Amino acid sequence: MPYELYYWDGLPGRGEFVRLALEDAGAAYIDMAREAGGMPAMMALMGSRTELQPPFAPPFLKDGDLIIPHVANILLYLGPKLGLAPADEGQRFVAHGLQLTITDMVAEVHDTHHPLSTDLYYEDQKEAAKVRASAFIRNRIPKFLGYFERVLKRNPHGAGQIVGDRITTLDLSLFQLIEGLHYAFPRAMAPFAERYPALRALCQTVRERPNIARYLASERRMPFNETCVFRHYPELDEDPR
Amino acid sequence: MPYELYYWDGLPGRGEFVRLALEDAGAAYIDMAREAGGMPAMMALMGSRTELQPPFAPPFLKDGDLIIPHVANILLYLGPKLGLAPADEGQRFVAHGLQLTITDMVAEVHDTHHPLSTDLYYEDQKEAAKVRASAFIRNRIPKFLGYFERVLKRNPHGAGQIVGDRITTLDLSLFQLIEGLHYAFPRAMAPFAERYPALRALCQTVRERPNIARYLASERRMPFNETCVFRHYPELDEDPR
Repeated sequence: MPYELYYWDGLPGRGEFVRLALEDAGAAYIDMAREAGGMPAMMALMGSRTELQPPFAPPFLKDGDLIIPHVANILLYLGPKLGLAPADEGQRFVAHGLQLTITDMVAEVHDTHHPLSTDLYYEDQKEAAKVRASAFIRNRIPKFLGYFERVLKRNPHGAGQIVGDRITTLDLSLFQLIEGLHYAFPRAMAPFAERYPALRALCQTVRERPNIARYLASERRMPFNETCVFRHYPELDEDPR
Repeated sequence: MPYELYYWDGLPGRGEFVRLALEDAGAAYIDMAREAGGMPAMMALMGSRTELQPPFAPPFLKDGDLIIPHVANILLYLGPKLGLAPADEGQRFVAHGLQLTITDMVAEVHDTHHPLSTDLYYEDQKEAAKVRASAFIRNRIPKFLGYFERVLKRNPHGAGQIVGDRITTLDLSLFQLIEGLHYAFPRAMAPFAERYPALRALCQTVRERPNIARYLASERRMPFNETCVFRHYPELDEDPR
């Protein structure tokens, strides 16, 4: 039975981290956002009065009767099944810790355009967004990316992947995170290639994986846009140098 | 060898979710914040130039050579070892999803007093904090707690625990989350007992567990304070009714 991935229609967002893993592995899955009736089905599941353990928010994965919410949790579940998890048991917890650090950074990206409330429009919190985005660009991007670069460079198996001796869901997620940052903050990310050469090379490795390359060139790959977590508002972008 | 828990000194914060699990199980652990040299040791680990996989931020757990960061990840690791995980493999992913929803709510609590930047003082983002806290109280507390109440009440094994037929780290974490919310937002939480009777009963169950009761009465239990994630600023609190 194919996996069912539930996420908002029309934006890559957090669902894309899961899609990349499924696509890289060539796994059979139904992208519910692309199905007629997929969005009503998602809303019905979340608001169900009978589902015993409904998810709080998308994305979530349905595998038979099991419903698994949260990107990092889905990737933890899928990793071993897709051949995209570290072989070592202890390293899976290290990898999951890194995945949760990506989760935190993604949440901070979201809050650059919604610092006050998700119930307010961006236009109604633009001034606060400018302050938050500036702090994110000056302090948080270097802190997070500097950290990932360090861990990647120190991998005793080489910097071809961030954990262990094979590509895992983490590497695919780092690629997506950095793609999103480039889209949202092109000026802030201008120094990227120079400052984070190992991450840059990793992104290239991911991009060239056959199934990923095919996916990126397909219609299934959605472009970033301003309903996504990663939004490009030029007024929030700045060159940190 | 006892576990080593690394977290900031002087505040319960995110570390407390881990402490409660260790205390409930009567596990041998060293609370590094209480040890002479514990804070420098934590900072050295995070800033180490030789540690291959340093953690991004506390809390983290050291078990021999393995360093595990992020509360939910630590609890995922410890749960089975401490007898505080669901017996069913699939349910562990459901439980972890719920734990990550707690993580998200804790992050939102943090952002009520730091909506613009963690690098600014609260006093320098007070006006933004008022807007964010108000939205949190009006929209997010009911959304999150209503969700947890629903899942708890629907547990086919009874509402004595949120997943499965035994107390897990999740129940201890829900207790701590709700304690923190009561401390930070006493007016906002005034309707709690009436609106969320199942969660209220769960908190009482947790509080009365022998090891937890002993811990809460001990000097090891730190009071909440205004360096914590959960801060009581009266100007951010309001009665939502």
